[in-house]
Amino acid sequence: MGQPHEPDEAGTGSGKPALGVGMVGYAFMGAAHSQGWRTVGRVFDLPRRPVLAAVCGRDEQAVRAMADRHGWAAAETDWRALIARDDVDLVDICTPGDSHAEIAVAALAAGKHVLCEKPLANTVEEAETMAAAAAEARERGQMSMVGFNYRRVPATSLARSMVAEGRLGTLRHVRVTYLQDWLVDPQFPLTWRLRKEYAGSGALGDLGAHIVDLAQYLAGEPLVGVSALTETFVRQRPLPAAASSGLAAVTETGGVGTVTVDDAALFTARFASGALASFEASRFATGRKNSLRIELNGEHGSLAFDLERLNELSYHDHTEPGTHAGFRRILVTEPEHPYLDAWWPPGHGLGYEHTFVHQARDLVHAIAAGRPPAPSFADGLQVQRVLAAVEESAEKNSVYTPIAV
Amino acid sequence: MGQPHEPDEAGTGSGKPALGVGMVGYAFMGAAHSQGWRTVGRVFDLPRRPVLAAVCGRDEQAVRAMADRHGWAAAETDWRALIARDDVDLVDICTPGDSHAEIAVAALAAGKHVLCEKPLANTVEEAETMAAAAAEARERGQMSMVGFNYRRVPATSLARSMVAEGRLGTLRHVRVTYLQDWLVDPQFPLTWRLRKEYAGSGALGDLGAHIVDLAQYLAGEPLVGVSALTETFVRQRPLPAAASSGLAAVTETGGVGTVTVDDAALFTARFASGALASFEASRFATGRKNSLRIELNGEHGSLAFDLERLNELSYHDHTEPGTHAGFRRILVTEPEHPYLDAWWPPGHGLGYEHTFVHQARDLVHAIAAGRPPAPSFADGLQVQRVLAAVEESAEKNSVYTPIAV
Amino acid sequence: MGQPHEPDEAGTGSGKPALGVGMVGYAFMGAAHSQGWRTVGRVFDLPRRPVLAAVCGRDEQAVRAMADRHGWAAAETDWRALIARDDVDLVDICTPGDSHAEIAVAALAAGKHVLCEKPLANTVEEAETMAAAAAEARERGQMSMVGFNYRRVPATSLARSMVAEGRLGTLRHVRVTYLQDWLVDPQFPLTWRLRKEYAGSGALGDLGAHIVDLAQYLAGEPLVGVSALTETFVRQRPLPAAASSGLAAVTETGGVGTVTVDDAALFTARFASGALASFEASRFATGRKNSLRIELNGEHGSLAFDLERLNELSYHDHTEPGTHAGFRRILVTEPEHPYLDAWWPPGHGLGYEHTFVHQARDLVHAIAAGRPPAPSFADGLQVQRVLAAVEESAEKNSVYTPIAV
Amino acid sequence: MGQPHEPDEAGTGSGKPALGVGMVGYAFMGAAHSQGWRTVGRVFDLPRRPVLAAVCGRDEQAVRAMADRHGWAAAETDWRALIARDDVDLVDICTPGDSHAEIAVAALAAGKHVLCEKPLANTVEEAETMAAAAAEARERGQMSMVGFNYRRVPATSLARSMVAEGRLGTLRHVRVTYLQDWLVDPQFPLTWRLRKEYAGSGALGDLGAHIVDLAQYLAGEPLVGVSALTETFVRQRPLPAAASSGLAAVTETGGVGTVTVDDAALFTARFASGALASFEASRFATGRKNSLRIELNGEHGSLAFDLERLNELSYHDHTEPGTHAGFRRILVTEPEHPYLDAWWPPGHGLGYEHTFVHQARDLVHAIAAGRPPAPSFADGLQVQRVLAAVEESAEKNSVYTPIAV
Repeated sequence: MGQPHEPDEAGTGSGKPALGVGMVGYAFMGAAHSQGWRTVGRVFDLPRRPVLAAVCGRDEQAVRAMADRHGWAAAETDWRALIARDDVDLVDICTPGDSHAEIAVAALAAGKHVLCEKPLANTVEEAETMAAAAAEARERGQMSMVGFNYRRVPATSLARSMVAEGRLGTLRHVRVTYLQDWLVDPQFPLTWRLRKEYAGSGALGDLGAHIVDLAQYLAGEPLVGVSALTETFVRQRPLPAAASSGLAAVTETGGVGTVTVDDAALFTARFASGALASFEASRFATGRKNSLRIELNGEHGSLAFDLERLNELSYHDHTEPGTHAGFRRILVTEPEHPYLDAWWPPGHGLGYEHTFVHQARDLVHAIAAGRPPAPSFADGLQVQRVLAAVEESAEKNSVYTPIAV
Repeated sequence: MGQPHEPDEAGTGSGKPALGVGMVGYAFMGAAHSQGWRTVGRVFDLPRRPVLAAVCGRDEQAVRAMADRHGWAAAETDWRALIARDDVDLVDICTPGDSHAEIAVAALAAGKHVLCEKPLANTVEEAETMAAAAAEARERGQMSMVGFNYRRVPATSLARSMVAEGRLGTLRHVRVTYLQDWLVDPQFPLTWRLRKEYAGSGALGDLGAHIVDLAQYLAGEPLVGVSALTETFVRQRPLPAAASSGLAAVTETGGVGTVTVDDAALFTARFASGALASFEASRFATGRKNSLRIELNGEHGSLAFDLERLNELSYHDHTEPGTHAGFRRILVTEPEHPYLDAWWPPGHGLGYEHTFVHQARDLVHAIAAGRPPAPSFADGLQVQRVLAAVEESAEKNSVYTPIAV
Repeated sequence: MGQPHEPDEAGTGSGKPALGVGMVGYAFMGAAHSQGWRTVGRVFDLPRRPVLAAVCGRDEQAVRAMADRHGWAAAETDWRALIARDDVDLVDICTPGDSHAEIAVAALAAGKHVLCEKPLANTVEEAETMAAAAAEARERGQMSMVGFNYRRVPATSLARSMVAEGRLGTLRHVRVTYLQDWLVDPQFPLTWRLRKEYAGSGALGDLGAHIVDLAQYLAGEPLVGVSALTETFVRQRPLPAAASSGLAAVTETGGVGTVTVDDAALFTARFASGALASFEASRFATGRKNSLRIELNGEHGSLAFDLERLNELSYHDHTEPGTHAGFRRILVTEPEHPYLDAWWPPGHGLGYEHTFVHQARDLVHAIAAGRPPAPSFADGLQVQRVLAAVEESAEKNSVYTPIAV
Repeated sequence: MGQPHEPDEAGTGSGKPALGVGMVGYAFMGAAHSQGWRTVGRVFDLPRRPVLAAVCGRDEQAVRAMADRHGWAAAETDWRALIARDDVDLVDICTPGDSHAEIAVAALAAGKHVLCEKPLANTVEEAETMAAAAAEARERGQMSMVGFNYRRVPATSLARSMVAEGRLGTLRHVRVTYLQDWLVDPQFPLTWRLRKEYAGSGALGDLGAHIVDLAQYLAGEPLVGVSALTETFVRQRPLPAAASSGLAAVTETGGVGTVTVDDAALFTARFASGALASFEASRFATGRKNSLRIELNGEHGSLAFDLERLNELSYHDHTEPGTHAGFRRILVTEPEHPYLDAWWPPGHGLGYEHTFVHQARDLVHAIAAGRPPAPSFADGLQVQRVLAAVEESAEKNSVYTPIAV
């Protein structure tokens, strides 16, 4: 021994076909996806070998530094060039929502698989175009997936399987909150996330999209109508000194600008089965940093999850005798739990970033097997329709607004 | 020593004027109020000496047994006779909501002080009549109070004082849930609480009234509009074999009957200041026994309370440096906390029933001082208007419905 | 109706024989016991009717005020006079430990039943005398009980029954801490609790006695040996300006005095079955107010309890599949839970004081049935032997010290 | 752009000197360290560029697969060959404790830096040899560190800085438990971890070493004496069908063998300052998977940490007014918290494995700066002396046993 052998960029794979990944966008999501692609092959047995082929961003120096930092083999400044690369099989879109549709449609047209960050798009129309393109590409064997990564927490994945097994019985209630507090300070600057032209919406699209998807995923059924309130508490904010990160060029400096998205969105809803739901997404919940909590109550049991304690799932089994029943805290860190046989011994918890590793794992398996991954672009479109109904209801005095099918 | 001296029924008071209490209704609330009246003078220094003068119920044998059990000096079967008694200064109404208005108005007309269980009434009209009668009686020195006992938990009382001190700053969010699960079983019988003619409404009036009052009390401001969904999940239930407790005679036996109240009510709302609120009241939240949770988020801090852990208050001080900030669990069991100097050493917690002791204490002080206690019948009426707006919104497709002033 | 009938002092009982209670001591414990005796007959169906016959304390004015406040029919200043009273059937001893033996032995000699606060005595010798007197009196039909009230929390009572059912299997570990922080301030005065001549020991006798009893009660087996460390962190403290409460006359004022008891006691131990245990009692655990926590780990399951959340019991069932297993939080507030059918609807929690109500209930039942209540004086003596072994081990360089049988 | 540039194995570093890592052992710890080395340069700005040069294990096929899987450039089957490699600057020892001394001393003699997994060695003598060799090598500019990775959880690191700032004042109590349950089943096989010749000790060396180091690190002072109990609950276990992982060849199959290490170790202790401590390490705490909990109580405040919720730190500030004081839950996920400016936005938690990334980061910085990292081999030796005193005390009837200096 002692002879050097060629190690892979991201995981073993002697003999396994490579899967070249090209990523557009290199800010927060870009870093998280990089960590996912870099780690997945080291931890999981995969049918194909992910290769970090190229990353793309507008700022040449920044994107090159990012490529160096995160181990991407090449850097591009034009996403069209990235898509055109032969060594890119999968285009991973991590840009703000305003560019999702154009990039995804082009990537699909170029014969690539596509992973697109959530929300799928800034409008229902864009999302429809994307879903149509994805369906067409699907016929040609190309896969598309939306990055609703919170489906890939072992605890939410376990929750889904428990609901699917019928452990909750007829569903009665779902309540979800996704609370952050980074906008509480009125001096926080007007970044792209606060401008409708880039972000589409505020807490609704950023946080609300996650919880709408998660609630429907766990419930195993769609929402059919909503009644909503939205609010922008602080309407004027200082303009940022320089462009915020990513592709969104915010060029003004000094002075103040107008926040054109919601700070908070609350809505009640009905599921297809008649279960009731409540949703709240806010960036003004002081002291709550990344607090996504969901609870489902069914005839036979209940489940609860809190993203700030993501290694735990709460479960009440209502079929047990009342004397000894209660919400139990399942520590979702056992080998028999979803994804965990590849990780550490019992009790050694995972973190936020591992959702991206799991997302990469599931997508690679789907591509290799030729079966469509979930959530599909159609699923992303449906979430978009829920968000559109929320906005419509909020504009129409909260009137109950059916979700388009 | 060793000479017997005359001990009081309910607390010391040699030389203190008695305050004769006459209670109508003797089920769950009657037992809780009895414990409150019996204990208050033993624990707190009071300006007047409460005397458990008489209790009233329709069933002679049952009410006499209750009087024996709980130490009431006399038993009556006609509430008009109770009101007419000279030894009754205060009428404490613990019956279902359909009889509140008649009894309260008569008691006020008879010159008595009145404590009335929540919800104040089954309709806004009744509540208006009661509030008007209370206002008139107030001129004659008679006091009226509604039994929103959750204001009297030391932790909620502390929370109120912290909000009043400005510790939260501008309020942004209030979210409240009051969840129980005793109706999950479809075979649970059709008691008076499930019939509109006795209870007025279901989870809304029973649980929703509590959380609307508590939210407005803690926020220190009224709600101005709501958008609501209500649902009755199980519409047919077995009729009870015999009359349920209290004054409500449900005479049918065998067969099934129709549930005519809501099983769950969800609503979003706006406070006068522009803060957003969400409310959920349900008897179908499997595994949640008496789970009243409220959280307030303001510009400078947040507070959270959970009735299932009622000796605790959660507080986040947002003016602290972020490195060391976090929600702290205040164990509200110190002598400097509300009501607690009269109880046990630090760390020795109270229970549900103590809210009734505190309610009695506050009412006796108010009566003795000649100042109106809170919550007044006007406050109870305002809560009733919120509930009416909820019902109206639910009937009108959840449209945002202003609350009448 | 409307005719006054004679209400009882403490609970119904027309036709039931009275049980006259005479209480010695009227500070914190006296108030708690008063509340227990006053309430028990109102809530529980009892075979005998407790009557608050007389209370005794040295300070005439204070004891009379206490009698007034808490509803005792008579006040005495000499405990021998109290014992001699014909209307006293049961002597309830709430004084500091130095007087327990003398009072209890005299009361038993006078033919009374005895309830004695914990710790049973300040020395093993005293406890032996008491246990012998109790055994003798038992032959004459007199009952004796020690006031280890934490056995009477519904959650600990439920835990005991679960252990007895074999739900834990072979016991492996018990760990218990009882932490308070009222001595952290070095300026806290030298009350009787800090003086060996009155209190016997410090955290050990006050807190340690509770947790030794609770651990043995829950385990269902005795400790057989201990290895201990004790410490007095602050050795000099200001003398109190006046006598502290109760019978202990601390007459010095001004200046400082020496703390002659332990501030903290830690010990490891072995149970008869070979299970290991750890104990910690401290008054210097900053931020912990009355934090008694116990956990038991057995081959088939585990239980955990926290006095600061006394309406909850944590249970892990190790016979369940690992995928869904976890510590569950049983809300011990259901009618099927110990003591709770007499209280409120599900989810309405009790507090610290209710342990004294339950203690009174169990004792009255035992007396009426003529069967010895638990914990007996023999049980109290055995706890005393454990504490003595702790002190012996601490003096002998922590060497493992068997517990005398 | 679009030109491929040479990406590094593990992080950026054009122009930065490489730091070749050679790892011995490839089981659980090997995987965790691999993840650490692979990730550290991607996330943190480092002065040197870690290169995964070679990994070593006895089984050629297994070690090659591991190298492929985890991205090590070469595989070796003889640790002497690994040490001899020119491309190895740092030897990372992840084998069972019986081989630590030999490998570490040889690596230091060969001029390499050394990172050694805990416990440092199986005996004090070995640890002394290692510490001496490390001190000598230190003179030549070689660095040595022990892998007490729980110092690198952001929350424990924050706790250390808070203690160092004096936020706790004089320390009174430290209590630590490290509880697992993987040995509860008596059919669990006799792996190398249960044999003294490989593992040195059982729960004591595996779990106890961690908590002794963490307690001393957080307290900022050493333990000076201990009193201990140890126990082996299940003394005979089935032999494993094949060798367990790593270098420890357990060759017997079938039949049963004798467990020669402790299943659980409990000890009380004194710190140099006089603070008291209690420790418990067990593999028989049913339902506890990886439950390391530590609490420190000081005159001015307290801190608590639970490894199963590793993104949180509990802090009680006793200098605050009692009315609003309480244990606060600091979510240690803010950019101003230790290590976190390199990771995700606020509220996005880390997991177990990140301790290894942080360990690698700190070691690389120390090597590049030429300053000795902590914990040093001398620190590891001192922990070993604590463990030896625990074993000595346990053998000597728990007598208080001073820790050698």
